[in-house]
Amino acid sequence: MGEANKMVSVEEALQMVLRVAQRLPPATVPLHEALGKILAQDVAAPDPLPPYPSSIKDGYAVVASDGLGEYPVITESRAGNDGIDVTVTPGTIAYVTTGGPIPCGADAVVQVEDTELVESASGGPKRVRILKQVAQGLDIRPVGSDIAKGDVVLKSGERLGAAEVGLLATVGVMTVKVYLTPKIAVLSTGDELVEPTNESLNRGQIRDSNRAMILAAAAQQQCEVLDLGIARDNEKDIERIFDRAFSSGIDILLTSGGVSMGDRDFVKPLLEKRGRLYFHKVFMKPGKPLTFVEILPGSIEYSIGNKILAFGLPGNPVSCLVCFNLFVVPTIRQLSGWTQLHLPRVHARLKQSIKADRVRPEFHRAIVRWEFNNGTGTSGFVAESTGHQISSRLLSMRSANALLELPPTGELIPAGTSVVAIIISDLIGSAGPSSLPSSIPVHVTQHSNPGN
Amino acid sequence: MGEANKMVSVEEALQMVLRVAQRLPPATVPLHEALGKILAQDVAAPDPLPPYPSSIKDGYAVVASDGLGEYPVITESRAGNDGIDVTVTPGTIAYVTTGGPIPCGADAVVQVEDTELVESASGGPKRVRILKQVAQGLDIRPVGSDIAKGDVVLKSGERLGAAEVGLLATVGVMTVKVYLTPKIAVLSTGDELVEPTNESLNRGQIRDSNRAMILAAAAQQQCEVLDLGIARDNEKDIERIFDRAFSSGIDILLTSGGVSMGDRDFVKPLLEKRGRLYFHKVFMKPGKPLTFVEILPGSIEYSIGNKILAFGLPGNPVSCLVCFNLFVVPTIRQLSGWTQLHLPRVHARLKQSIKADRVRPEFHRAIVRWEFNNGTGTSGFVAESTGHQISSRLLSMRSANALLELPPTGELIPAGTSVVAIIISDLIGSAGPSSLPSSIPVHVTQHSNPGN
Ligand SMILES: [Mg+2]
Ligand SMILES: [Mg+2]
Repeated sequence: MGEANKMVSVEEALQMVLRVAQRLPPATVPLHEALGKILAQDVAAPDPLPPYPSSIKDGYAVVASDGLGEYPVITESRAGNDGIDVTVTPGTIAYVTTGGPIPCGADAVVQVEDTELVESASGGPKRVRILKQVAQGLDIRPVGSDIAKGDVVLKSGERLGAAEVGLLATVGVMTVKVYLTPKIAVLSTGDELVEPTNESLNRGQIRDSNRAMILAAAAQQQCEVLDLGIARDNEKDIERIFDRAFSSGIDILLTSGGVSMGDRDFVKPLLEKRGRLYFHKVFMKPGKPLTFVEILPGSIEYSIGNKILAFGLPGNPVSCLVCFNLFVVPTIRQLSGWTQLHLPRVHARLKQSIKADRVRPEFHRAIVRWEFNNGTGTSGFVAESTGHQISSRLLSMRSANALLELPPTGELIPAGTSVVAIIISDLIGSAGPSSLPSSIPVHVTQHSNPGN
Repeated sequence: MGEANKMVSVEEALQMVLRVAQRLPPATVPLHEALGKILAQDVAAPDPLPPYPSSIKDGYAVVASDGLGEYPVITESRAGNDGIDVTVTPGTIAYVTTGGPIPCGADAVVQVEDTELVESASGGPKRVRILKQVAQGLDIRPVGSDIAKGDVVLKSGERLGAAEVGLLATVGVMTVKVYLTPKIAVLSTGDELVEPTNESLNRGQIRDSNRAMILAAAAQQQCEVLDLGIARDNEKDIERIFDRAFSSGIDILLTSGGVSMGDRDFVKPLLEKRGRLYFHKVFMKPGKPLTFVEILPGSIEYSIGNKILAFGLPGNPVSCLVCFNLFVVPTIRQLSGWTQLHLPRVHARLKQSIKADRVRPEFHRAIVRWEFNNGTGTSGFVAESTGHQISSRLLSMRSANALLELPPTGELIPAGTSVVAIIISDLIGSAGPSSLPSSIPVHVTQHSNPGN
């Protein structure tokens, strides 16, 4: 296991993790539970949409060649059985509503705005004046024009958002096969930790913030979570909790603390006892002491037969959450069947100059916002640092939606420099429509370099 | 109500809605329920962090002026009561671990890597050789250096993500005041609609896709939802369901269908009977027939005293979901206490040319991705159209993460043109670190126009 003692780069570490992380099996769930998950089947349409020639407007179905004039309304065709068995012959018209079926014989729709109701003579059918000549086919959606029968409307591997849920309902699929998301157990370790509910602290105590934070982060990734509490810095306590975790059917174990060079940092050796250690130091700032172990089913005495990926996250809260974003989020996505494993990366210009670390690549916490061209420069993302970046200072993660990747040059990176930003939470819009350059909610500019 | 009959612009319509939408009252909830919500109180730290001078490294607490040499380890200070009442006097040192308290008398930490254990003579205390001269204060976090006692760590109005949950736990706040999110009822209307579970369709029938879609969209916005089913196109049925909805303590009612110009489009008149109509036509494509009504408590005979905002969304599924994104999402955010009401807007270059509508501003569905500078051009977002944009074709929303705002010029907007894109779901990363220009996961370029 000599290899595993090397300090690895962020990229090497992530590749090792993703090589052993395996997609979970699919399960069939009701549509509302499938939201946000990855489809594990192709879905085809059992019937065409629309299933019948359908009106795009409220108005009158006509024989287009009839043209202008006054016509009797021989039927009303809104939905269902309305107007069934009635044929629109030349010289007659039918009332239709948006989405309603076009009766046989009609080949165009004249919208109600282009018609006029004629004073009704007592008794006979309603009569309407057609004020506009329309072309054959106007305002009719032919059968299958939105979805042809047999069309694959969604493919295995696609993520289900609201629109995709709508598509599934359209084709009659109300339970669907999706990849399961991992079950994650979260443990804090450290003799200094007390429950956050403690109002006053004794000497040497701090409140455990990592557990609530990582449980929240895992929940945000749609994972089922298991709270393992706080383990003391002793081997028996940690082993007892590991046993409990490993027999709970979890897919991922996240610990924090106990991975440094202290004489009671037992997490790494105790995880290594249970499986295969891949690395325990990653060349990055913050977050250097990060342990990753793969625990195979059958390798230890617990019964549930799934592989467990164990991350020994650093105890400093910032390091802990940064490592969660960089390593655990892609792992969760791989287990959940995503094809897009990585958090999105964009370029952002620095709002203020930042001194880079001399040794390790740094993931500097920042707030990234889109700024629109105000007439003097270009549009683009601008990154504002969250301030002092010491890894114990969780305030540096407050409101941060990005990690700036800074190379270890040891130099001052001047304001205005464009750096890579990893987006870790919601984008911040520069503002609503009212602050946009134009008063119509639209702004089109010819790009200076349209060839790209 | 003559004003309400005008066709209004998207911006005017949104302003009317946001003028009447009122923030819901706050409630105190446990931390895990607060995730994603808006804080309704300032939160201050009851104690400093760290609460004691704390070691940044595993190593030895020393008197810095002692310098190099061999010293006896007089105590071990890891956490809790370790090393209490022991003072590090000149000529002695104490073992400390990361995060542990610095014993009295010591004023710097020498990391374990810069020390050497001396062969222990039998009996006496462990002896350690200090190999590096350190400056006073090195690797010690002073009391309150991360958070001072009394510091406001989070302010009312901030959104709670994982880091903020961690901050709350740090300061001992496990139940917190957040603004409630609205309760939303969803109703589909139309004689043509059948439950999506119907395997085969009779003449004139289609499956109801809007309800599942809008319930999913509302759930994505963290709202509690109420499924009102399908109402037929008759006044009695709709009124009966409205009565049920209005007595269910909802904040928002979303209907779809029944807002066009058909003779059985009862949604607008029946909503107008219950409250104040602000508009029922918005100048946009898709989505023109959009009704908005404010229903005040006491204005009708139901008992629960909250204001209800009712949106009569269009029946076409694309129009329905676009209107949800443009109007209902900002409304939900306002009710939930957000300060950032609008979806983020960015610029994106068109991947293919698009013909703009001649009359109405269009919200063209697209997939927006960040593309990195490949050496020949600039980095930036690129927008790919989802294809045919007819409002019945929900496939045009499949995978779409943006709406492109296109002005009604009637002209062809050439590929490469930069347009405004409203981001409606997750950003798509161009790729993971391996496809980035540099092999270190970092890429810094001096921006050509650093003055901006
Ligand atoms: Mg520890
Ligand atoms: Mg209808």
